[in-house]
Amino acid sequence: MPSEKTLPQIFKYVDENVESYKNLLKEAVAIPSVSCDAKYRDDCVRMVQWTKDKLKEVGATTELRDVGFQNIDGKEIKLPPVLVGTLGNDPKKNTICIYGHLDVQPALKSDGWESEPFELVERNGKLYGRGSTDDKGPVLGWLHAINAYKGVGEELPVNLKFIFECMEESGSEGLDELLMDKLKPEGFFDSVDYVCISDNYWLGTTKPCITYGLRGISYYFLEVECAKMDLHSGVYGGTVHEAMSDLIYLMNTLVDKDGKILITDVYKSVAPLTENEKKLYDTIDFDPEAYRKSIEAHKLAHNGVKEQLLMHRWRYPSLSLHGIEGAAFQPGAKTVIPGKVIGKFSMRLVPDQEPAEIEKLVFDFVHKKWAERGSPNKMRIWAQSGRAWTENPDHPHYQAAARATKLIYQTDPDMSREGGSIPVTITLQEASNKNVLLLPMGAGDDMAHSQNEKLNVRNYIEGIKLFATYLMEVGKLAK
Amino acid sequence: MPSEKTLPQIFKYVDENVESYKNLLKEAVAIPSVSCDAKYRDDCVRMVQWTKDKLKEVGATTELRDVGFQNIDGKEIKLPPVLVGTLGNDPKKNTICIYGHLDVQPALKSDGWESEPFELVERNGKLYGRGSTDDKGPVLGWLHAINAYKGVGEELPVNLKFIFECMEESGSEGLDELLMDKLKPEGFFDSVDYVCISDNYWLGTTKPCITYGLRGISYYFLEVECAKMDLHSGVYGGTVHEAMSDLIYLMNTLVDKDGKILITDVYKSVAPLTENEKKLYDTIDFDPEAYRKSIEAHKLAHNGVKEQLLMHRWRYPSLSLHGIEGAAFQPGAKTVIPGKVIGKFSMRLVPDQEPAEIEKLVFDFVHKKWAERGSPNKMRIWAQSGRAWTENPDHPHYQAAARATKLIYQTDPDMSREGGSIPVTITLQEASNKNVLLLPMGAGDDMAHSQNEKLNVRNYIEGIKLFATYLMEVGKLAK
Ligand SMILES: [Zn+2]
Ligand SMILES: [Zn+2]
Ligand SMILES: [Zn+2]
Ligand SMILES: [Zn+2]
Repeated sequence: MPSEKTLPQIFKYVDENVESYKNLLKEAVAIPSVSCDAKYRDDCVRMVQWTKDKLKEVGATTELRDVGFQNIDGKEIKLPPVLVGTLGNDPKKNTICIYGHLDVQPALKSDGWESEPFELVERNGKLYGRGSTDDKGPVLGWLHAINAYKGVGEELPVNLKFIFECMEESGSEGLDELLMDKLKPEGFFDSVDYVCISDNYWLGTTKPCITYGLRGISYYFLEVECAKMDLHSGVYGGTVHEAMSDLIYLMNTLVDKDGKILITDVYKSVAPLTENEKKLYDTIDFDPEAYRKSIEAHKLAHNGVKEQLLMHRWRYPSLSLHGIEGAAFQPGAKTVIPGKVIGKFSMRLVPDQEPAEIEKLVFDFVHKKWAERGSPNKMRIWAQSGRAWTENPDHPHYQAAARATKLIYQTDPDMSREGGSIPVTITLQEASNKNVLLLPMGAGDDMAHSQNEKLNVRNYIEGIKLFATYLMEVGKLAK
Repeated sequence: MPSEKTLPQIFKYVDENVESYKNLLKEAVAIPSVSCDAKYRDDCVRMVQWTKDKLKEVGATTELRDVGFQNIDGKEIKLPPVLVGTLGNDPKKNTICIYGHLDVQPALKSDGWESEPFELVERNGKLYGRGSTDDKGPVLGWLHAINAYKGVGEELPVNLKFIFECMEESGSEGLDELLMDKLKPEGFFDSVDYVCISDNYWLGTTKPCITYGLRGISYYFLEVECAKMDLHSGVYGGTVHEAMSDLIYLMNTLVDKDGKILITDVYKSVAPLTENEKKLYDTIDFDPEAYRKSIEAHKLAHNGVKEQLLMHRWRYPSLSLHGIEGAAFQPGAKTVIPGKVIGKFSMRLVPDQEPAEIEKLVFDFVHKKWAERGSPNKMRIWAQSGRAWTENPDHPHYQAAARATKLIYQTDPDMSREGGSIPVTITLQEASNKNVLLLPMGAGDDMAHSQNEKLNVRNYIEGIKLFATYLMEVGKLAK
């Protein structure tokens, strides 16, 4: 069994293997496992296979679970399989279920990357590449932590279960059904004591945190069609009711310039702010000016007031307009009248907004605005949603993770919430009925989903040590 | 010199060579010479080279004229060269300057093409492929017509000059300077008597036309920036003034649902409708219901009234919203807050709208709306424009083309105008000081710029005969 000396040995082992950790991350980043574009579906499958091989190397038993098909424009496209694994089944040990995702957001060098997005490059102690921090770095972090126990000849202090999917950036299609209708009835979760997910970030760039709350998301597809095909604006301009102007009109009704959502009653179900919660924001380490500078915004919302910014990231809903599918998007002067356009927008949901209720409010509002427009075109709106999530940060599982974090970073982590959404968090909570914890590896300026996504070498390497220590601390919790 | 028998011989020769004409068009379509995307720049150059070889084969002397660089996002990208050619210099013959373009609009099978856009496929007497009708078919048509004279052993009845560019779909960058500052001073146009362009379409699908008027275009780039990079809507949503909502707001102020342009004073300079012009529309062969059905629109603008539709295509300006660069455009649920977005819209200009005056009206209007918005983000707008064009359809050049058309199609062509814009038309008019004529090859349902662009085999083959006959008729005009 691990002794007092195990962790120092592991830390030394990790420090000696930095190059191989970087090389493995380079290999993973080189597989463009973009899940939102069926063109990259083979790369997604390849990424799952690659990870399966690595998981087997650390001694886990693995299986690839088929999760069926995805419907894109009426075509059935096979979903990448979900990688499910098990390592250890000692009834005296605690069992942690670890979730991570292997897919990434799209990225093109021409979007403004300084180097090729799918080629991991180190500059100034940062590892740049799509997926470096979201979520390939953290997934590899777990494998390296396990491997480090092997490397120093110690057995793992816990049993582990793994769920690695490759559709997270595209609504985790097929995963809920796998977890609730297959793995749960099969008993996969019976032995699970804790659930841990590393797929988020520190609040800032220096102080670690542990995350006990996430916003949900309600993602909308708003389609307007004026013709069966795209039209030449010279030939047809002036003779058709154009779908684009209808869509732009609808998208303009949703949110005001200060980010206030204009959809009727959408704030009504938001949990009221208690005095206790209000106080929590005072002590959080967050510098609005540094935040503003990091993105070079001209001015932040809410006049840049710290508490307001945090509350609007964590506990109030926000609405973003993402773009338009079917319209001209290339550089240059394309003179098209798009025949069918799909506007994309989403709302981040907070306690106690119920997705079904919010969807209804949005649908009703959009249909009302559409009726006011009086256009002869066809309009259709649909959504995919996941509820917000919170845990109690005083739970022993959180205290164990806090001790591990303090050992690595010599400071107490902030107990934070996040503006982002990881819908699987709730499903895993429901499937396991156990405490779920988010243990971030990356820093707040990692630019997940953006150009020049990166993972600091320090966060990667200390993150591996953090994961190893977390396994140790959870191993010590009463069974 | 050509005799009475020449044309029947040529028609026979053309009918015997249909397969080779199709194969050459297939070769041309296979080169994806998309000019708006620098990624395809090598293909554009290849397309120019390919055409140069063909032009040499029919006996022309050719040169590739360098037209410098294009600035894309601060990077200097070399423009494709312009192919300039000369065939014959008999001072007793008339000289025609022929213009065509070798570049095409972008096309992806996933946009809704029934077959690969860059693979010419024949279905039901139609040749489907990007560029088939716009403008590779017509360019090849001229080469085949010339070749047919050679094929039957007759000399050409005219001298020819050629200008084939590969940036037409992207504002003909570099071309105006080449024509006005180089070719004109060099004397290229001194011997030119007539200018002919085949880069437009019949009004309908059965009756040929000759075109004496085009709308101009004023294309706008409307940029809003809220941050230096794209942001994750989960992390940043609720804390920034989003560029997308500002842009959508601005784009929503430009045009109403019925296509009425809302920009102050924009209709003021439009030439008033005279009683004489009004009468012209009565006799034009145009079926609104067939037009509506061909694009499967639910309802046409202007309640589908024929004269109103024609006037809004030809003699009134229209405004179309084309799309947004920098925003999410892919299928799926991308959760990005774009850092910088560029809205694209354009206005089709008519006599007597002056581009400079219209640009000022648009800039003033957008800046006024921007001030009303009161957003802290950065906004910038710029434009590229070309004036509308009309000729006198009673000119002998038009009468010669009308006789040629009647010989091929056994009907008098409609003298038509078009809603589209070919800015080079005006430059060629100014460079040559001669009568310019548009002689369409394709039909009104060819779907240039759209999915499933095609050229009817009939239009292609009869078009070759039409071009040969037009050369003959112009050859007969008094020198
Ligand atoms: Zn992630
Ligand atoms: Zn992500
Ligand atoms: Zn064209
Ligand atoms: Zn075109």
